[in-house]
Amino acid sequence: MFQSFDNSADSTQSAARVARVRVLMAKAGLDALLVPRADEHQGEYVPPSAERLAWLTGFTGSAGLAVLTLRSGALLVDGRYTVQARRQVDTRLFELPALGRPRLGEWLAEKVGKGAVVGFDPWLHTAAEVSRLEAQLAPKGVKLRPTPRNLVDRAWGTERPEPPRAPIIVQPLKRAGRSPADKIADVQRQLADSGQTALILTLPDSICWLLNIRGSDVAHNPVVLAFAIVPANGRPELFVAPEKVTDEARAHLAGLVRLSPPEALLDRVRALRKAGARVRIDHDSAAWALVGALGPKLAEKGADPCVRLKAAKNAAELAGARAAHERDGVAVVRFLAWLDRGAPKGKVDEIEAVRRLESFRADTNALAEISFDTISGSGPNGAIVHYRVTADTNRRLGKGELFLIDSGGQYPDGTTDITRTVAIGKPSEEMRERFTLVLKGHIAIATARFPKGTRGIDLDPFARRALWERGLDYDHGTGHGVGSYLSVHEGPQSISKSGMVALEPGMICSNEPGYYKEGAYGIRIENLVVVTPPATPDGGDREMMGFETLTLAPIDRRLVARKLLSEAERAWLDAYHARVAAVLAPKLDAETARWLAAACAPI
Amino acid sequence: MFQSFDNSADSTQSAARVARVRVLMAKAGLDALLVPRADEHQGEYVPPSAERLAWLTGFTGSAGLAVLTLRSGALLVDGRYTVQARRQVDTRLFELPALGRPRLGEWLAEKVGKGAVVGFDPWLHTAAEVSRLEAQLAPKGVKLRPTPRNLVDRAWGTERPEPPRAPIIVQPLKRAGRSPADKIADVQRQLADSGQTALILTLPDSICWLLNIRGSDVAHNPVVLAFAIVPANGRPELFVAPEKVTDEARAHLAGLVRLSPPEALLDRVRALRKAGARVRIDHDSAAWALVGALGPKLAEKGADPCVRLKAAKNAAELAGARAAHERDGVAVVRFLAWLDRGAPKGKVDEIEAVRRLESFRADTNALAEISFDTISGSGPNGAIVHYRVTADTNRRLGKGELFLIDSGGQYPDGTTDITRTVAIGKPSEEMRERFTLVLKGHIAIATARFPKGTRGIDLDPFARRALWERGLDYDHGTGHGVGSYLSVHEGPQSISKSGMVALEPGMICSNEPGYYKEGAYGIRIENLVVVTPPATPDGGDREMMGFETLTLAPIDRRLVARKLLSEAERAWLDAYHARVAAVLAPKLDAETARWLAAACAPI
Repeated sequence: MFQSFDNSADSTQSAARVARVRVLMAKAGLDALLVPRADEHQGEYVPPSAERLAWLTGFTGSAGLAVLTLRSGALLVDGRYTVQARRQVDTRLFELPALGRPRLGEWLAEKVGKGAVVGFDPWLHTAAEVSRLEAQLAPKGVKLRPTPRNLVDRAWGTERPEPPRAPIIVQPLKRAGRSPADKIADVQRQLADSGQTALILTLPDSICWLLNIRGSDVAHNPVVLAFAIVPANGRPELFVAPEKVTDEARAHLAGLVRLSPPEALLDRVRALRKAGARVRIDHDSAAWALVGALGPKLAEKGADPCVRLKAAKNAAELAGARAAHERDGVAVVRFLAWLDRGAPKGKVDEIEAVRRLESFRADTNALAEISFDTISGSGPNGAIVHYRVTADTNRRLGKGELFLIDSGGQYPDGTTDITRTVAIGKPSEEMRERFTLVLKGHIAIATARFPKGTRGIDLDPFARRALWERGLDYDHGTGHGVGSYLSVHEGPQSISKSGMVALEPGMICSNEPGYYKEGAYGIRIENLVVVTPPATPDGGDREMMGFETLTLAPIDRRLVARKLLSEAERAWLDAYHARVAAVLAPKLDAETARWLAAACAPI
Repeated sequence: MFQSFDNSADSTQSAARVARVRVLMAKAGLDALLVPRADEHQGEYVPPSAERLAWLTGFTGSAGLAVLTLRSGALLVDGRYTVQARRQVDTRLFELPALGRPRLGEWLAEKVGKGAVVGFDPWLHTAAEVSRLEAQLAPKGVKLRPTPRNLVDRAWGTERPEPPRAPIIVQPLKRAGRSPADKIADVQRQLADSGQTALILTLPDSICWLLNIRGSDVAHNPVVLAFAIVPANGRPELFVAPEKVTDEARAHLAGLVRLSPPEALLDRVRALRKAGARVRIDHDSAAWALVGALGPKLAEKGADPCVRLKAAKNAAELAGARAAHERDGVAVVRFLAWLDRGAPKGKVDEIEAVRRLESFRADTNALAEISFDTISGSGPNGAIVHYRVTADTNRRLGKGELFLIDSGGQYPDGTTDITRTVAIGKPSEEMRERFTLVLKGHIAIATARFPKGTRGIDLDPFARRALWERGLDYDHGTGHGVGSYLSVHEGPQSISKSGMVALEPGMICSNEPGYYKEGAYGIRIENLVVVTPPATPDGGDREMMGFETLTLAPIDRRLVARKLLSEAERAWLDAYHARVAAVLAPKLDAETARWLAAACAPI
């Protein structure tokens, strides 16, 4: 229902559009063309002007790659999106092969054969991705060729939306906690240490963090789409559409950076090449076009230093996060109380729940935007991990069902992300047992203590142990990093089976174990937590870190099987609820406060 | 005390030997020479003929690398061995820089300067190691050059021990559980699948597993030092000294393999190169000489397939392991009962404990050898993780102390490895608290259930959680793989912070969390466990694996603080002790059986 983009193709449109693109392919001498769901910045959200995949195929998921040959087509999506792709895409135009990108080479070789040329837009694929593809295709005798102008854009023509031009907002120092000048100095010190001349930044959230600016060029992530070059010495250059630069932004950026239009970027990169500069660029996120323009000798693979620097939040950002979570907690509690009044009477459906929750958040008068499309799944819909309700799938919340709602807000002082699972009417014993096992995992993360150097991979198993003991599990990570009024999914840390980055004080993560019974119900309990500074426990001999829980909202006590919790787990739940009640009650109307008191009673 | 090798240099000898080697270096035009503690097979144990590092420097540890220039020298050892190196090595001859191998390039560049040539024996370094070194040295303008004959051997001359010629022993089918012909067919299927022509094997335990043979060429690991080439079709060729091939071995190997002397290996490898064969060889374990002889185009990097195949034990091997652990359990219980009688009276020292334990094992009449040098540490010596008692360090076990003993046996049906920590007299409350925290970690591993695909890295944190909660930890992995009458340290799996290999049914691992208080005491509780086949727990929806504990010996109840254990942990300990008593009591004399009954009483 939040799919505001309406250029996505239906079957007839898709056929006509495919035909137009094929004409352009033939003229350009291409046997195949890659159409990824990506823009020049590789973000999770792209502006309507970059929704080429949806325009061509009808598929609106957040990740996918179409491959179009002159006679056939395929759409590659991951496990999350197979059902949605089957629903949205005309499979006479695009087959949906059960293969991942690693096997794209085989598919292409079979369809186009030796000597074929595959076109790609050099701005829409990362350097690393193109290298991998080349390695796959070379043994098959298939060549990759960058296209000078995007062929889909040419076919799309004047109907293609304009690129976004949202105004730059300044993130004040009191919220950012550190001035752009200081952050730039930190980055420049790293460049000097590695003997590099310059750094190219292509990730909008890195640039926004570095310069204390925000924007609204894409949905949900309050970023400005822009590029930047940071020299080891002197002023960085920000490449951004001039229309976005308000007077306030100009005043803020004056003296900090040189402003240039995005069109100037490639010239500047070529100048760096000419000067023989050693340039750091992240091959995993930067477009092939940029790495190619630098040439393999000068484009030194290296992590974008902002990613790590922004991950550990400073005191001002943490104060903001706490304030945002109190505010968000009020909205969530009002929502849960409203839900408890209406849902058991059969009055609430998934879409209505989403609308109400957003309106309670809007009532805070501080909501910039919701931080992602709300997941609102009742009964069997709750078991679809990446479910987004549509008019077609909308369900009324039924008695004896579970309702899972995963949502968040972007506030100027912090980003929130919370999931609650609520019993509508009386839950079954199985539901209570499994909810409690998930809760045990959640508490195991919330209460973990761990030494310096511990990575997310070392904590993830704690969230699963209680489920594993009963032959249950869930197929997603336990936690992702979260930005400070930035992306709700932020690296480099994660609490997951691939979380190899050490956790550091100030890093914010989600803590969201779950359990999903296909066709029946879904359970997830998600709070955000922040890594606490190291301290030596009484009687111990090593410093340990831990988590402070930021999210404030009751966990449905009706779903807790008390006997499955240990003494210590009960104590955690009661203490958490006591804190939720103490912090939020004074901010609520009397009726909601009463509801909260009951919801937070000791277990 | 078990250091039977006595060619290791004292200070005067070392100076003379260094001088002799330098003369040879100068003649050969070398500015520096690498002398690793390694043989051609990269095993943990090397024969006396390969103890070049000890001969030259006096250092007898199991890992280290000397770098000798014409004027200076350095010995690089890891954290385990810094104290021992300082004691054994004349630091006027060999400085002990606090740098790891990754920074060897810097040290060398500083000592020998640009244009220098560093010699190395191409048989004593893996291909991967030489590549890494080259990458370090090339930017410094330093070249690596293989030496045609080992310079240390030339200086050592006639005093150098002969290479070992121990007879090959046949591992009967009833113990191995699978015939060599079937194992060879498994390996050949893998080669065919990857389109490779042949496989070169350099790891003795891989070859011994493949051909169901054993030997005694080195200490503790019952292996035959040999090489092998397995073609994708036809008979493998075993390169082994003819003296080792007994009549029994010849009969066993007839029809299975072609026998050749080790000297023929290089010719055969060159023939493969000439034929343009695609050859799989493990760059992480095979000597640079072999990879170099194949050339970079034909030497396809690939894991030695035997490593994974032998890791998951078959039914016969598991039956053998259970029998070996019952037998070993009897010896350990007799030892612990003996210890309890004498140690509190001040009658036992560390060396005596080692001797007695070995004699109880020998009493089984099935001991081939102990599986590693016993670690026997009382009081502060117990806190030295890799402690080996010598006449100098030997301590009497004192009252109020902890005694840690880590030992194992090589039996023809299985390899054992067990650590027990015993209270001598009355332990302190702190000792009991920490012992119990270690025990909680041990039980957390023993009782873990986990889905397919779970790696050792996913289980390691369970062993640490109780310690972490109190600000404590230990600086070693929780578990290593164990062979079947083969190496006591065997890959590819491990329960540790780097254990990225998925656990499979039949894999044997140690479960050995610990805690060490420097200068005071050490605690470790080690049992071997085997991964159980997947099964779905009642009411669950996924298959889970778990562990069966193999080791049978009481855990010192006097060190258990009952109140720190949960109900479930107490139940585990009581059930384990009941099983130990039930299995072992019938095999013991009356007095020891009485002692065992008390040691196994419910907590």
